[in-house]
Amino acid sequence: MRIGVFGGDGFIGWPASLHLTNRGHEVVILDDLSRRQIDLELGVQSLTPIASIQERIKIWERISGHRIQFEQLNLATEFERLKQWFASYQPDCVIHLAQQRAAPYSMKSDRHKAYTVNNNVNATHNLLNAIVELEQDVHLVHLGTMGVYGYSDIGATIPEGYLPVQITNDDGSQHTQEILYPANPGSIYHMTKCLDQLMLAFYAKNDQLRLTDLHQGIVWGTQTEETRRHESLINRFDYDGDYGTVLNRFLVQAAINYPLTVHGTGGQTRAFIHIQDSVRCIELAVSNPPARGERTKIFNQMTEVHCVRELAELVAQLSGVSIDYVKNPRREAKENDLKVSNEKFLSLGLNPTTLSDGLLDELVEIARKHKARIDRTRIPAQSAWTKEIGDELRNIETIEQVRQRA
Amino acid sequence: MRIGVFGGDGFIGWPASLHLTNRGHEVVILDDLSRRQIDLELGVQSLTPIASIQERIKIWERISGHRIQFEQLNLATEFERLKQWFASYQPDCVIHLAQQRAAPYSMKSDRHKAYTVNNNVNATHNLLNAIVELEQDVHLVHLGTMGVYGYSDIGATIPEGYLPVQITNDDGSQHTQEILYPANPGSIYHMTKCLDQLMLAFYAKNDQLRLTDLHQGIVWGTQTEETRRHESLINRFDYDGDYGTVLNRFLVQAAINYPLTVHGTGGQTRAFIHIQDSVRCIELAVSNPPARGERTKIFNQMTEVHCVRELAELVAQLSGVSIDYVKNPRREAKENDLKVSNEKFLSLGLNPTTLSDGLLDELVEIARKHKARIDRTRIPAQSAWTKEIGDELRNIETIEQVRQRA
Repeated sequence: MRIGVFGGDGFIGWPASLHLTNRGHEVVILDDLSRRQIDLELGVQSLTPIASIQERIKIWERISGHRIQFEQLNLATEFERLKQWFASYQPDCVIHLAQQRAAPYSMKSDRHKAYTVNNNVNATHNLLNAIVELEQDVHLVHLGTMGVYGYSDIGATIPEGYLPVQITNDDGSQHTQEILYPANPGSIYHMTKCLDQLMLAFYAKNDQLRLTDLHQGIVWGTQTEETRRHESLINRFDYDGDYGTVLNRFLVQAAINYPLTVHGTGGQTRAFIHIQDSVRCIELAVSNPPARGERTKIFNQMTEVHCVRELAELVAQLSGVSIDYVKNPRREAKENDLKVSNEKFLSLGLNPTTLSDGLLDELVEIARKHKARIDRTRIPAQSAWTKEIGDELRNIETIEQVRQRA
Repeated sequence: MRIGVFGGDGFIGWPASLHLTNRGHEVVILDDLSRRQIDLELGVQSLTPIASIQERIKIWERISGHRIQFEQLNLATEFERLKQWFASYQPDCVIHLAQQRAAPYSMKSDRHKAYTVNNNVNATHNLLNAIVELEQDVHLVHLGTMGVYGYSDIGATIPEGYLPVQITNDDGSQHTQEILYPANPGSIYHMTKCLDQLMLAFYAKNDQLRLTDLHQGIVWGTQTEETRRHESLINRFDYDGDYGTVLNRFLVQAAINYPLTVHGTGGQTRAFIHIQDSVRCIELAVSNPPARGERTKIFNQMTEVHCVRELAELVAQLSGVSIDYVKNPRREAKENDLKVSNEKFLSLGLNPTTLSDGLLDELVEIARKHKARIDRTRIPAQSAWTKEIGDELRNIETIEQVRQRA
């Protein structure tokens, strides 16, 4: 298949692009390199030393024989160039990973909120709009998030995108209807993924586009089969307060004996998936498109459910580092249950990498190996969900301060 | 109250601004004049001769003594100026009518789709974002649409925004949850109003903003108590294929003995409201804000339900003009039922103007009076919902051609 990977220089896009070429697909990466620019803005860098996109592509071609094309393109602003690309490349499938993807970054300031909404909404809409305009039968695979469901307890397993509900008619009888699972986003970033869902639903209905939405859990892990093949292919690993996800942050803290910072009680229960499984799922989604006229095909792209406290305890055990419970910068439920269906990917043959298998490797091969690159001042999470919470955070002594004092 | 009316030069914004000043409020109109620019783009004009915003404001001050301020501002692109305005004016309430509001225009081409999404989403988000950033306790009244509900028969009266549903738990028992009514938009324009709903829901939850969403039916009628007071205060009246709503189009056709063009079978059932009631509803919403911490307060802003065929028959009876059933440029259900609750506005004292009261006046006072200004070539609806429908439309002899041949 001829595939365009939008956001193919990013954390998921890069290993997904390698995996797809390895499975015999032809890949073009389209990326505006905004993730690298945000590193500059925040003054942070990936824990793993990542090569430039040009260098990565050159190395991959040398060792695998697969040539990946690269086009620098801003999906949200360059609609005319996007259409030209569709017209000339004639892709069978496009994978849409070209969005600002950190919840804390999206809540950092009014400017970051505006950027996230404007960039993410226009990126998705431009893709849909271009496919219709070019009259191409392209399958679009969109990366969504488990966060569209929210994390309120509803006493029922979260289905894959659609929820059957009973509605009471005027005459008192009831009928069943399957609805898009009611959105309950927890940040501006998550909100944009909910907006995406509605745009996909409209274009599936009005234009019979073939659309897949992957509601992904929190990704952990760094390397995949392909990125392991050369040090210049290594994937990025973020641990800073904005882009670092919970498990990465614990691993980095463990590597430098920094107490593991659990937000609130750590009772937040979330879904997780290893990066290796994430790229496999994307390939499975690409190979199993919906038919024309079908509604958006939604997969839950996750393999395990854990609460944050549990993860902290696991990493504490592996490493011997202590746990610190700190003020939560987010506005979210303190504790929640979570049951999620992921039958669709399992039935397509996904064989999950579990935390118990991979976590020690991550600690030794990634976090400890690169620990000289860790900037401990960038560990605290400083993007607050509201100004009130931000004020409270600033009035609390930081762990760093506590440790320096001790 | 100090009120900012965004989009205050438009069809609803202008009479709403007059009404609000008449009720003792202080009003600033903020508008980028895009509606007038779209007239230029389409080569059409309001049937009623409307004065410039500067002239309108001058006349209103002369005859009423109320001074309205005007600020030319593009809400979607001028975020910094918007914040400056909030900081200096310190409004109690803002009314958000600054969106591209025609479904056919939103479906006209890829460029029009992109403009509608980009403009409408950023306009709404900029307002929400600015209110949070400025830490002001401003009540935001947003104009939504009945179209967010879609027009599929669910056998139950459409409630005001929130639907109680039964969800089956994993153990087989059921529980009731009240959800935002599942969105089912019929055009890119309607889709943007569904996106707005989710943004409002997020900001009500995360930032406790006080938000009202008015799900308005199709507006008919031209004059209000205030616009009638001087010929330079007259409201705009659109009849072209993009901006003209169904009843306006029938009235204009009746005035020039052009057969009434019914799309499809005319079985589309929709909700309607007179412009006079629309501005009254806005004033009622302004005066009855939700409390801080409440979810978005949703009103159904409509007073009557009719199917298109019924309206055509009514206008045909009044005028003696015949009816033509033509190919529908839209992708929508041929026939549907519709029952809508509008209890909230009725309980606040709204006393509706009915079609049977006002329709003849509209025909005589507006459509026939200004019939010399009608451009009959702009009557056919030419914006098709898909390229396929567009191709079919172009292959059908137009009514105009049929009439010229006859």
